[in-house]
Amino acid sequence: MTNTNIQLTSTISADNKLTVALNNVAMPQPGTEEVVVRIEAAPLNPSDLAIMFSVADMNTATQSGTAQQPVITADVPAKFMPAVKTRVGKAMSVGNEGAGVVVAAGSSPGAQALLGKTVAVIGGGTYQQYVCVHVQSCLELNEGTTAKEGASSFVNPLTALAMVETMRAEGHKAIIHAAAASSLGQMLNRICIADGIDLVNIVRKDEQETLLRNMGAKYVVNSSKESFRSDLIAAIVETGATIAFDPIGGGTLTSDILNCMEAAITHDSTEYNVYGSGTLKQVYIYGALDRGPITLHRNFGFAWNVSGFLLFNALGKLSQETVMAMRKRVAAEITTTFASHYTHEVSLAGALHMESIAAYSKQATGEKYLITPQA
Amino acid sequence: MTNTNIQLTSTISADNKLTVALNNVAMPQPGTEEVVVRIEAAPLNPSDLAIMFSVADMNTATQSGTAQQPVITADVPAKFMPAVKTRVGKAMSVGNEGAGVVVAAGSSPGAQALLGKTVAVIGGGTYQQYVCVHVQSCLELNEGTTAKEGASSFVNPLTALAMVETMRAEGHKAIIHAAAASSLGQMLNRICIADGIDLVNIVRKDEQETLLRNMGAKYVVNSSKESFRSDLIAAIVETGATIAFDPIGGGTLTSDILNCMEAAITHDSTEYNVYGSGTLKQVYIYGALDRGPITLHRNFGFAWNVSGFLLFNALGKLSQETVMAMRKRVAAEITTTFASHYTHEVSLAGALHMESIAAYSKQATGEKYLITPQA
Repeated sequence: MTNTNIQLTSTISADNKLTVALNNVAMPQPGTEEVVVRIEAAPLNPSDLAIMFSVADMNTATQSGTAQQPVITADVPAKFMPAVKTRVGKAMSVGNEGAGVVVAAGSSPGAQALLGKTVAVIGGGTYQQYVCVHVQSCLELNEGTTAKEGASSFVNPLTALAMVETMRAEGHKAIIHAAAASSLGQMLNRICIADGIDLVNIVRKDEQETLLRNMGAKYVVNSSKESFRSDLIAAIVETGATIAFDPIGGGTLTSDILNCMEAAITHDSTEYNVYGSGTLKQVYIYGALDRGPITLHRNFGFAWNVSGFLLFNALGKLSQETVMAMRKRVAAEITTTFASHYTHEVSLAGALHMESIAAYSKQATGEKYLITPQA
Repeated sequence: MTNTNIQLTSTISADNKLTVALNNVAMPQPGTEEVVVRIEAAPLNPSDLAIMFSVADMNTATQSGTAQQPVITADVPAKFMPAVKTRVGKAMSVGNEGAGVVVAAGSSPGAQALLGKTVAVIGGGTYQQYVCVHVQSCLELNEGTTAKEGASSFVNPLTALAMVETMRAEGHKAIIHAAAASSLGQMLNRICIADGIDLVNIVRKDEQETLLRNMGAKYVVNSSKESFRSDLIAAIVETGATIAFDPIGGGTLTSDILNCMEAAITHDSTEYNVYGSGTLKQVYIYGALDRGPITLHRNFGFAWNVSGFLLFNALGKLSQETVMAMRKRVAAEITTTFASHYTHEVSLAGALHMESIAAYSKQATGEKYLITPQA
């Protein structure tokens, strides 16, 4: 174990500047219930970008420093400063998850048992070479699973599983998923096929429809088509889906989904009800791919919820048993059901090159970056 | 008991015409568990207008017939016809609630016990002279309570009480109410004062603020003022309100409320959380005073729900005991806590005069019409 540790941090200063840079930091020392993980691979998720670049105007971004120690700076519009006031002047660590080998462990049996093991970790700022985390933030990967294979063991897999468990807990029988060709969407598709749950996939492009159909998806509707609404209504009539998950938020998709649910629920009703159907229609918004306003055109009666959905909140509503079973399933199926596909690998320094930033900031469906901090 | 019964009905025809008229219909005969109530008074609530005039363009409305038998006709825009297809060709009865004297009763003891009593009723189409309803749809009014006093015993009183019970059941400790100077808002204000619950009243006009303050309201914020947002945040900081009820829907008020809740929750926090606070922020939309789109500008994190709120759905989530206690309280306090103030009284025919329609269709806060079908 070397003595150098490089960490990517993001800082917003009081004079409206964002700085993202690599720092040499101390090698962490594990507490009793902690381990130090040498991070081999960490994915770039949308939630990581929200910390890394925050509310900065990335059109103003410039790269300075050296190729090995790049520094990104950008302006933060004054109007957004109040929203980030509690992080001003603090060097925020970045990286929600990753995987690597446990190279040091605290004295507790739980920590010691992980020594030398390849684990996935959640939290702690994984965009660094060595991260110190609590034992419970580790998922031991099965023999033969590599760190790269296990790098995305938490955010997408547990979110996809939490969607299914939420559907069950709230009494729905099929799911609608928007931006369904994403890594998460592909996982959800595999879970639903395996578990016999009807899933209505909403995509925007023909090739995304093809991708999902080739993966066995039965219901795929394309929101770019003229026939989108009638296609979606038909799929809801067939599946009975009354819960949806939407990572986009901004715009009218959530509204469209609710209106199509209501149209499907009432499509063969002969009774008029001025308040709409009594069937609860639920849309969870779990991301902000479109940060614009969410616009709801109400033709869906009074039995509806639109809610934020956050993995940690959702897990908190599930039993400890259910969550443990979810983690076990992820470890067992990390190279199948929960496999992630990365289109690019970059070092910590490479993640701070302008051309990489321009590419992964698009958050294009099907494009996914993996950071390899040891490279 | 006379043999004539006049009923107000609303019909949409297949050729896009709305007709609202008075009809001579048969005197109803009660079943075993039913009673016939001679309706003395029935309020005009927004939900009644939604049945009576539905999606017709009331700018095209014309009055024909006679002064005693007026007929209102109006065009229904073609684009709205699909939404009302299940009521086409059906003469819909109108009137969600009212009160009067039981003049006939079925053979069951429960029905017989109500004979001669003054009762409030829910459902059945109260815009007629004699309505037949199930015993359970009746609330026996206390000795001395008049039908006019008891005419609004269900919709507003139970909705206001259901808001308080929903607050309790969902673990909130104070309430925000929009359009707070309404009849319902005044009831809610009186309930909250009596029960020691902090209520933040949102109004649009100075005189509404004065009205509520004179009724003892502690927190009143005016959404027309420059300082609205900071006033609302301050009120939420003081009260800890994390649940709101909004009868407007369209526009950005729901969004403003959520953002002010989040600002209040995080106002003294020093920790940055990219996902926003973990405190659930709930807004229930219980009306459609503005039928335009609901527009949510998200700066309120991921712990939020925006939901439709309908009295019958809300009651369904409460225990039978709670609902019985609510009804008892309404009967006991119908001339105090739950008193309604009517600015106009009209006969069934008078309700179909153009000048009345123009007035009550505005649904202006503080204006309320009472129909007296025996006049």
